[in-house]
Amino acid sequence: MGGAELVQASISLKPALDAIGKSIDQRFDRLLAVPDDGRERLYLAMRHSAIGGGKRMRPLLVVAACDLFNVDRERALRVAIAIEAVHCYSLIHDDLPCMDDDDLRRGKPTVHKAFDEATAVLAGDSLHALAFEVLADEATHEDASARAELVLELARASGPSGMAGGQMMDLAAEQREFDIGATTRLQQLKTGALIGFCLEAGAIMGRIPESQRTPLRGYARDLGLAFQIADDLLDVEGESAKTGKAVNKDAAAGKSTFVSLLGVERARTQAQMLIEQAIEHLQSFGREADLLRAIARFTIDRDR
Amino acid sequence: MGGAELVQASISLKPALDAIGKSIDQRFDRLLAVPDDGRERLYLAMRHSAIGGGKRMRPLLVVAACDLFNVDRERALRVAIAIEAVHCYSLIHDDLPCMDDDDLRRGKPTVHKAFDEATAVLAGDSLHALAFEVLADEATHEDASARAELVLELARASGPSGMAGGQMMDLAAEQREFDIGATTRLQQLKTGALIGFCLEAGAIMGRIPESQRTPLRGYARDLGLAFQIADDLLDVEGESAKTGKAVNKDAAAGKSTFVSLLGVERARTQAQMLIEQAIEHLQSFGREADLLRAIARFTIDRDR
Repeated sequence: MGGAELVQASISLKPALDAIGKSIDQRFDRLLAVPDDGRERLYLAMRHSAIGGGKRMRPLLVVAACDLFNVDRERALRVAIAIEAVHCYSLIHDDLPCMDDDDLRRGKPTVHKAFDEATAVLAGDSLHALAFEVLADEATHEDASARAELVLELARASGPSGMAGGQMMDLAAEQREFDIGATTRLQQLKTGALIGFCLEAGAIMGRIPESQRTPLRGYARDLGLAFQIADDLLDVEGESAKTGKAVNKDAAAGKSTFVSLLGVERARTQAQMLIEQAIEHLQSFGREADLLRAIARFTIDRDR
Repeated sequence: MGGAELVQASISLKPALDAIGKSIDQRFDRLLAVPDDGRERLYLAMRHSAIGGGKRMRPLLVVAACDLFNVDRERALRVAIAIEAVHCYSLIHDDLPCMDDDDLRRGKPTVHKAFDEATAVLAGDSLHALAFEVLADEATHEDASARAELVLELARASGPSGMAGGQMMDLAAEQREFDIGATTRLQQLKTGALIGFCLEAGAIMGRIPESQRTPLRGYARDLGLAFQIADDLLDVEGESAKTGKAVNKDAAAGKSTFVSLLGVERARTQAQMLIEQAIEHLQSFGREADLLRAIARFTIDRDR
């Protein structure tokens, strides 16, 4: 896969990312209307995190996966909102002084900097609950078993068996050396599980039986790992101005990453191989999987 | 209602509270088996919070409400576990230095004291996700619409429209004077919403139509307020050794409480009146509501 093709792919993804960003912002704006009863600060903090920032890769993945199965766009966006809410909650808590202690996120002050720590804890908790409220609502799917399955899978992907568990392993990684196997497992929990849910959600919304979900799961697994390697590369090579957050944090914290374990060049090769694998999983789908293919290529090309 | 009757009621509730405590501990013990992959500390922190502490009033309320409608006990206990998980998550986050900064909870060091702040944040988040995972699982109810409804109502009761919103109002209450109306609304969100869900869950599990849930909702509303007034009274009158947590925190923080607004005697009278009202709501139920009646009486008699 040449560099020119990658640039091409990332250019063609821009309109899709812009469109999903706008859709997500509009819906959060309605969902997080600021009340007038002492909870103003909570809603303003949620809005600070959820509106107007980030690439919205996860929402775009959800919509792309839902499009494979002709899911109504408005419903797909509800699932996208739920996943973005979980992603935002995890960023708010992850940025806290007792966690990564970050001042900058998506080019803005982090929530505890713009507001305060107590508000940040509650804003994270609120976005967390809101995600499940959105999924369980009848407006998301007329079939209650689809709604219950969405909730079950999101809870697994974000809880102690998924994202939160991975974050704990990440804290442990500062204390002891992780090898490539342990680092892979850590990342599969920390970022892979939620990315996996984005694709699984498409299948759930489309009422696709478990037996037919293997290709999407393969795509999600390879994409998730490539995504993390690309993130590690950005942390080493990126500029704060472009990434919108502090760089070189992992090395400073003494954490094992794919880059520290493999070196820059091998890590980059590994990411490209994973992306090619991810795209191969989509073989059985036709042109309607082109957006998922473009997302995969964009994943390792975000910094250009 | 005389003092002797109250003591009688609280004595008769003891075996029920002991039994539910044991049931909840057993189930958390199974649910939170400690893995061996870098997440040990996370699970130990969740266990520290969830096992072996607290009165388990909320789980008992769930089971008592489920008993009204002949819900299978094992399933009722799954819902009880979910609510207790949410309650524990809220206590862990509420105790953090940036929130109430408490060192003692249920007679033990708080999670951030026994472990550390980062682990406390993640343990709270993990219990939060776990609650929805438990509710959405088929083992909780064979009817997916019951599972989706449980999730929807728990998310509403615990998120920004419920508990988390109430906690934000509570933080705001330190900055400005709240009158009795604002304090009532604050408490309805902060503690009332989750107590309301305990009763609603019984109706959902029993597949009772909305139109027949009015008595239980009335009971829950009055019980929730009485519960909070009793808590405020304990904060003023209790001893740390008996309550298992620091006392006189509210006055020190300059917060309006029912006791600061009404005075001790009027607050006590108000709580007793609310409990009588709560019990009246149960009139249409026969002896099978005796446990709910005993819980109501026990609520304002916890410190004896």
